[in-house]
Order: sequence, then C-alpha cells, then structure tokens
Amino acid sequence: MKRYRLTVAYDGTAYHGWQEQSNGITIESVLNETLSEVLKEEIHVIGASRTDAGVHAYGNVAVFDSETRIPPEKISYAVNPYLPSDIRIMRSEEVPADFHPRFTDSVKTYEYHIYHGRIMPPTRRLYAHQVPVPLNLEAMAEACRYIIGTHDFKCFCAAKAQVNSTVRTVLDVQVHPDKPGAEEEIVIEVKGEGFLYNMVRIIVGTLLKVGVQAYPPEHVKEIIESKDRREAGETVPAKGLFLREIRYTK
Amino acid sequence: MKRYRLTVAYDGTAYHGWQEQSNGITIESVLNETLSEVLKEEIHVIGASRTDAGVHAYGNVAVFDSETRIPPEKISYAVNPYLPSDIRIMRSEEVPADFHPRFTDSVKTYEYHIYHGRIMPPTRRLYAHQVPVPLNLEAMAEACRYIIGTHDFKCFCAAKAQVNSTVRTVLDVQVHPDKPGAEEEIVIEVKGEGFLYNMVRIIVGTLLKVGVQAYPPEHVKEIIESKDRREAGETVPAKGLFLREIRYTK
Repeated sequence: MKRYRLTVAYDGTAYHGWQEQSNGITIESVLNETLSEVLKEEIHVIGASRTDAGVHAYGNVAVFDSETRIPPEKISYAVNPYLPSDIRIMRSEEVPADFHPRFTDSVKTYEYHIYHGRIMPPTRRLYAHQVPVPLNLEAMAEACRYIIGTHDFKCFCAAKAQVNSTVRTVLDVQVHPDKPGAEEEIVIEVKGEGFLYNMVRIIVGTLLKVGVQAYPPEHVKEIIESKDRREAGETVPAKGLFLREIRYTK
Repeated sequence: MKRYRLTVAYDGTAYHGWQEQSNGITIESVLNETLSEVLKEEIHVIGASRTDAGVHAYGNVAVFDSETRIPPEKISYAVNPYLPSDIRIMRSEEVPADFHPRFTDSVKTYEYHIYHGRIMPPTRRLYAHQVPVPLNLEAMAEACRYIIGTHDFKCFCAAKAQVNSTVRTVLDVQVHPDKPGAEEEIVIEVKGEGFLYNMVRIIVGTLLKVGVQAYPPEHVKEIIESKDRREAGETVPAKGLFLREIRYTK
C-alpha cells in the first residue's frame, strides 16, 4: 500500500464544490468513482482544500492509498481519459505514507478575477466577477498592506463557520492590474498558510469597497480590529475564484 | 429608418458559427430573433465576419436597419438582458445608411491561443488548442516575417473555398510568449485587411510546424510560393480562435 498525491485542476462551474455530499456531484465524488474504476480498488481521496461550489482550481491537492502497480507519475495519464473534461489530474507522485494534505504545512495561493468593464465578454462569464465601475487600484493596493501578516481575521470569516481560532497568517495580497490581452480585468492574488471559511472571497469584497471608495484604505485596519463580519465587505461570487497552487513547505 | 452598428462578443462553443443556417443555432439567428423581439420589428443583421462553428469573438461587427426610438448607444443595454449569456452586444452606435460592414475597409485582428503544457487545465479547455510539445518560439517569430505583406495566399486557403483572388495583405503576425497568470499558453496575433477561408487557422497550423521544427522558418516562404494548400500546415481547431477586433479605417 502506497500513498499518492494528485495535483488536481478543475472548472468548478458544473460542481457542488469539492466535498462529497448527497445532493449533487462534487469533484471529490467524481475522483473517488473514477480512481476506483481505473485502479480497480475502492479509493477515497483526502483533499487539501474543500473548495466551494463554482470555485475553480489549477492546483488543488488530494492524496489516496492504493495497491496499484502503475508508476506514480503515470497515474495522471492513466486516469485523465476517464475523467470528465472539466477535471484533470495535472500531476501524480508518491508521497510518504503519513503525508496528510491538510495537516502538513503549506502555502496556498488563490487568485480572484474581476472584470471591471461595463459589459462582460461572454468568454469570461464563468471565470470572472463583474464590477462595472471604475476601481481605484492604488487605494486597493494600499489596503492590502493592512491585511498582510498574522491577525485575528474573525471579520473575514463567514458567520456560520465554527473554528477554534480565527487567527491566520496572510503572507501576501497583491492587486495585479489589467494586462494586454486581458483588458479591463484585474487579478487579486492572496497567499497564506491557511484561510478561514470564505476568507479570500470576503477579503476581495472588502478590497472592492476600497476600490469603489466606499471607505479609505486605512479603514481596513479598523475592520480587522473590529473582529466583526458585518464591518467587512460582501462575499464575492465563487466563479471569480481560482485555487492556483498549494506548495508544501516540507 | 436608421442604420446601427453592433460590436458583438460571443463564446462560440455552443453555436454553429455566425451565419444563419437550417441545421443549427447560429449567432446571426439568435441576434435576428432577439433584436426583432426587443425592437418589435423584423430585423436582419449583416455581419462583418462569418466566423466558423466554435470560433469566439470579442468584437465581431453587425449592422441592421431599424425604426427604433431607443438611443443608439442604449440598444446594447436594451437587448443584452434578452440574449443568452454567451452572446453580448459590447457597443451599439448609429452609422451612415450606406455603411456596409464587409465592403468598408477595415483591419481585423485575430488571436489564436495555444496551450503547450502536457495536460490542459480544464478552465482553458474551451478557449485554447493544446500542443503538448516544446515549441521554438524564436523560429515561429522568424517565420512570421515571411507571412507579413501582400502575397498570393492560395496555400493558406481552405481547398473548398471559391474566391476570385487569393491575394491578401497581412499587416502583422506576432507570437506572444507565456505571461504570468497564463503560463504555458502562447497567443498568435494576426492582423490583416481581409482573410481567405480558414486562413488564420492554417497560418497558425503552419507556424506550429515551424515551432515543432518540422521545417525551418524560411520554408514558409517556399510554402507561400508553392500556392499549394497541401504544403502548408493543418487547419487548427476553431476553439483557440478569437476575433478580437474589426477596426474600420474610414
């Protein structure tokens, strides 16, 4: 029995999120079914990040244990042809038997795409959130500075979430402006060791409030200090969010 | 009766191309139906570029004549809510009654997206063509130089096409390398005053032959001189092609 790690990319549009559930198709359930079928044994993956319905990924991570004789790096090629076209295993490798994708230190990078033109081009409709008003990107960039660091981020945690501690470390938040070929689309990149439920989407919602000048950048410091979810911005829609990478630090 | 010009963007995935036909839904037929419904008169658009099934657009152009009292620039906002989410009118304006979108001089810009990593991320599956081998971008850029200019491009014209002359002017061809946020994806940009049937897709197929070093860049000159479709590369798939812009020069 060996443990394998998969780097999984998906278009979240058609799924009820990562985690297996009774009332809809999920990434996890499709992976379990397809891996079990191809490897001819019952497979249960353990996911690193239980992304919400509609969230996309370039590099979520899952591990599973198997008796397969397929060489580790070939598992992706063996399984991909049996997966639906909106899920792909980008990479497969063997890891130590005690490697756990959630309990091992890692740096996660998320991207959030915002289309800020007046009419959204249809080819971006499933992959960006539209905010059809001018955004002050400098103010947003300044606000990022108050978020970076280790803080009690209770204000950025969905009210329904139950966790022991709402202290987290945000390593970086950056606002990338439009670039040629993707005019009128900005990308907010958020890097951290771990996030609270909906935290990235609430951070983006709060930065957007700064962007539309509902309040000045320094007000974000007060929002964090308030520890009050109601002080922060909205939870922006799932479709703009991409889990880009999970990098294990050991 | 006034003439209106629409700049139309669409995700071509679900359509049998632009031009109205009996055996499938097209962009033109959806526009005709929706405009007729919203403006309460029978509308027939004239399109600038009859893109093929699966080709996308940020800026195709269509004109139509109407008695509507909706201010020209508001037509887009009036009609968009009634269009399917994969078609959007990006802009609407009044033009002279004799403006014809095909017979007026223009510069058309196309983009072709190529994902050259080994496994295609699902969120790109509908918008890029995968070529999972290393590409020599310098050789491709050098080959572009032989295409730019006014030539008899018979070699780049689909065999079934019937045209009087296969002489066209290509104003620019550029190979844009990967950029941050779109790793392993190159974009080939082609600008011209007019193109033969499938010409952009055959140019890209030929540049890819140079990219995989099937022949050296200077062989493209010989291919053009041969005037033989069989000498050029394959017609690459429609899904990687975007009609970015049609700029009228007068």
